[in-house]
Amino acid sequence: MRPTDRLGTLIQALRCLPGVGPKTAQRMAFHLLLRDREGAAALAGALQGAIQHIGHCLECRTLTEGELCEACADPKRDSSQLCVVENPAETFAIEQSTGYKGRFFVLNGRLSPLDGIGPDELGLDLLEAKLKSGTVQELILATNTTIEGEATAHYIGEMARHFRVRATRIAYGVPFGGELEYVDGTTLAHAFNGRQNL
Amino acid sequence: MRPTDRLGTLIQALRCLPGVGPKTAQRMAFHLLLRDREGAAALAGALQGAIQHIGHCLECRTLTEGELCEACADPKRDSSQLCVVENPAETFAIEQSTGYKGRFFVLNGRLSPLDGIGPDELGLDLLEAKLKSGTVQELILATNTTIEGEATAHYIGEMARHFRVRATRIAYGVPFGGELEYVDGTTLAHAFNGRQNL
Repeated sequence: MRPTDRLGTLIQALRCLPGVGPKTAQRMAFHLLLRDREGAAALAGALQGAIQHIGHCLECRTLTEGELCEACADPKRDSSQLCVVENPAETFAIEQSTGYKGRFFVLNGRLSPLDGIGPDELGLDLLEAKLKSGTVQELILATNTTIEGEATAHYIGEMARHFRVRATRIAYGVPFGGELEYVDGTTLAHAFNGRQNL
Repeated sequence: MRPTDRLGTLIQALRCLPGVGPKTAQRMAFHLLLRDREGAAALAGALQGAIQHIGHCLECRTLTEGELCEACADPKRDSSQLCVVENPAETFAIEQSTGYKGRFFVLNGRLSPLDGIGPDELGLDLLEAKLKSGTVQELILATNTTIEGEATAHYIGEMARHFRVRATRIAYGVPFGGELEYVDGTTLAHAFNGRQNL
């Protein structure tokens, strides 16, 4: 017995999800059809609603349903601080844990020339216009601490210097609760060299 | 910045997939919206097509688009053999690796009283009718070799005995390529006691 056509289509379609290979896709398809048709219908509706109605904020490029996201539409936020992150999820993470009340700018990616992702794909022209306008006093570079995230931060840092805007980078160091013995050498070197007065 | 309503709905809806928790659901939602909207639209369509058109075969209870699945509609198959499996995926696995050309019967589950899954949920009334009809000569019990799969095989084996149909169980033993040193004790005991003449 081979999978029916529509079952095969569903299994194939599930593979667009990140981290889902053929076996997992099959397991998901059977689970939905045998045990959770209601969930499958809800998922189909949620996907369609999201594709149709969720776009990018005109100011910060995060995902939003209106023209502006909640943060950009809020006049009480501090426009003198602008925090640059790679993905929308990171804005939630930073807000939840730091109480940051400035503005965000979401790249929706990182510089990666081999994948064809350059300054245009990351909306750096929009960022440049913001730096030029003179409202931003501090540009906080909170891209990931990967090689590509570093390169992106460096590139944007140079842009900020060109417009005489102060650029800062989030601190490297030993993660909280980390044991020095198990921390990699690069992290330890950064933590040691970045030591601060108590 | 909190997730927009539709983004939250999508993240929640993705959690109906087996093995997908809040973090994975968020990653999937962002991946789809930022990088694969086409895939998301295809998935929504595939889900709806599958829910609407895929039902259960009237003969063997596997998933199918018509009234009968391909195997049950095929007159060339050997109706004297009936192989009982827990899930539709297992019929593909058995056919691909064994060349079995008999019929299948799919339980779509296993006996599990604590989860409210009894004989009715597994379509055992339909199986009983097949055993009663007299066409089945051998009932091959290919449920999983878990505790619940064993209990289900035992229960159905008793049914077969009642109708004087020969019931067989797939063999337990050391998996091909297995090293005895690393095989668990129960499997080794089964393999040893089930030894056969060379």
